[in-house]
Amino acid sequence: MISTLSPDELRRKIRAGEHIGNTSGSAPGFVQCNIVILPASHAPDFLRFCQLNPKPCPLIAVGEAGDPTLPALGDIDIRTDVPAYRVFRDGDLAEEVSNIRSLWRDDLVTFALGCSFSFEEALLADGLEVRNISQGRNVPMYRTNIDCVDSGPFTGNMVVSMRPYCAADAIRAIEICSHFPDVHGAPIHLGDPQLIGIADLSQPDYGEPVRIEDSELPVFWACGVTPQLALQAARLPLAITHSPGCMLVTDLRNSQLATL
Amino acid sequence: MISTLSPDELRRKIRAGEHIGNTSGSAPGFVQCNIVILPASHAPDFLRFCQLNPKPCPLIAVGEAGDPTLPALGDIDIRTDVPAYRVFRDGDLAEEVSNIRSLWRDDLVTFALGCSFSFEEALLADGLEVRNISQGRNVPMYRTNIDCVDSGPFTGNMVVSMRPYCAADAIRAIEICSHFPDVHGAPIHLGDPQLIGIADLSQPDYGEPVRIEDSELPVFWACGVTPQLALQAARLPLAITHSPGCMLVTDLRNSQLATL
Repeated sequence: MISTLSPDELRRKIRAGEHIGNTSGSAPGFVQCNIVILPASHAPDFLRFCQLNPKPCPLIAVGEAGDPTLPALGDIDIRTDVPAYRVFRDGDLAEEVSNIRSLWRDDLVTFALGCSFSFEEALLADGLEVRNISQGRNVPMYRTNIDCVDSGPFTGNMVVSMRPYCAADAIRAIEICSHFPDVHGAPIHLGDPQLIGIADLSQPDYGEPVRIEDSELPVFWACGVTPQLALQAARLPLAITHSPGCMLVTDLRNSQLATL
Repeated sequence: MISTLSPDELRRKIRAGEHIGNTSGSAPGFVQCNIVILPASHAPDFLRFCQLNPKPCPLIAVGEAGDPTLPALGDIDIRTDVPAYRVFRDGDLAEEVSNIRSLWRDDLVTFALGCSFSFEEALLADGLEVRNISQGRNVPMYRTNIDCVDSGPFTGNMVVSMRPYCAADAIRAIEICSHFPDVHGAPIHLGDPQLIGIADLSQPDYGEPVRIEDSELPVFWACGVTPQLALQAARLPLAITHSPGCMLVTDLRNSQLATL
């Protein structure tokens, strides 16, 4: 049972090529991170982009240039400890690889960003349904008309994920998620999707649509796809991210991210 | 300027008959309370009603039978320190009086309940609009189809107050109010009013209607009129409450009610 492994054990399996693919549901209770790796020359602009847009880009850790470890998050070698990586050249997806040993350079900087898995776990722990999980689908994600604050070449609109709730559960979800600012925090919108530039909830830009009952409101959270689009918009000669759903599993507990 | 008086100074003016009427905006920063006074024989049932229905009936203090003081809330004589009282006999409003000296009995018990003034102040302090305040109206209140949990003769449906917000401000209001469980806490509903049995927002059961923009959602908070209706439903031989808007001003600061 992969889910009973500790984060460290799971990372060793990933490092050895014995765990490939999605990390959803693995090492429950522990923080999983979105990963962005880019040259040091662009790191200050990207760091500032995250600080200017904290809801879609909640920064949990930044590595040192050329150093593939992230000691604050565990015994990690970022070159091998993510199940799958996407390599972008000049903004275009060039290849998908299972490690980046041969791509590593002395000037690469790693950014680890919070991910919705943490707050979904908090919602489930409180007895709330998470529709994409109960339907066994990828969460639906949508491009909005909400501009991010630009920083250097990093620019773009906010992407949101959507989970439907009845009003009482939406209120409870807001209360819970407001305690987790490092994993996107409280939702950024609920109700009429057109007010944030979403024409049709049944046509997500990423992920898959989920069922919405008549008595439910769509609730929208800032999404970690936002920094990925900003990264593509910047058209850097080289940039590396995790592949969707194939996150960095850390030793940090979700509960450690809670503000009390 | 009445608003610069301390709570104690304000209560002395009320006690002397020099301040009559609404306490809204007086002694800013300090908790104002809904008051219910009833015979000790019914106090345990009413106390349980409050504990079973904490969102509409957030209990801040309970006096001892026959004792008109509330030392936890300040130097208070409940017989004189509320600007106006309503006296109910067998559930019907019998009279409205400026003190209850002649009605006081050795078996009367005072209940002080949280009031929306406290969370409205917290919303304003965060820069959110409170529409009923900016329109200079009494907040609109509605009877819902949500049953309270009965206790002895105390029964009835929840009454809610409504303030409209755009989605982002509604989310912020939920975050703020969730820190104030002793003054109704987070809203209990938002969006479609019919889902909680409200047919027409322009026809409140109490208070006055307020403007709602197309881009706004109605947001509903549990309301202190709920225990007043439960009290009337119980048809006690004698029950006394504050008159609407004429609250008990206490020495407790609103910030002391915040859960952190």
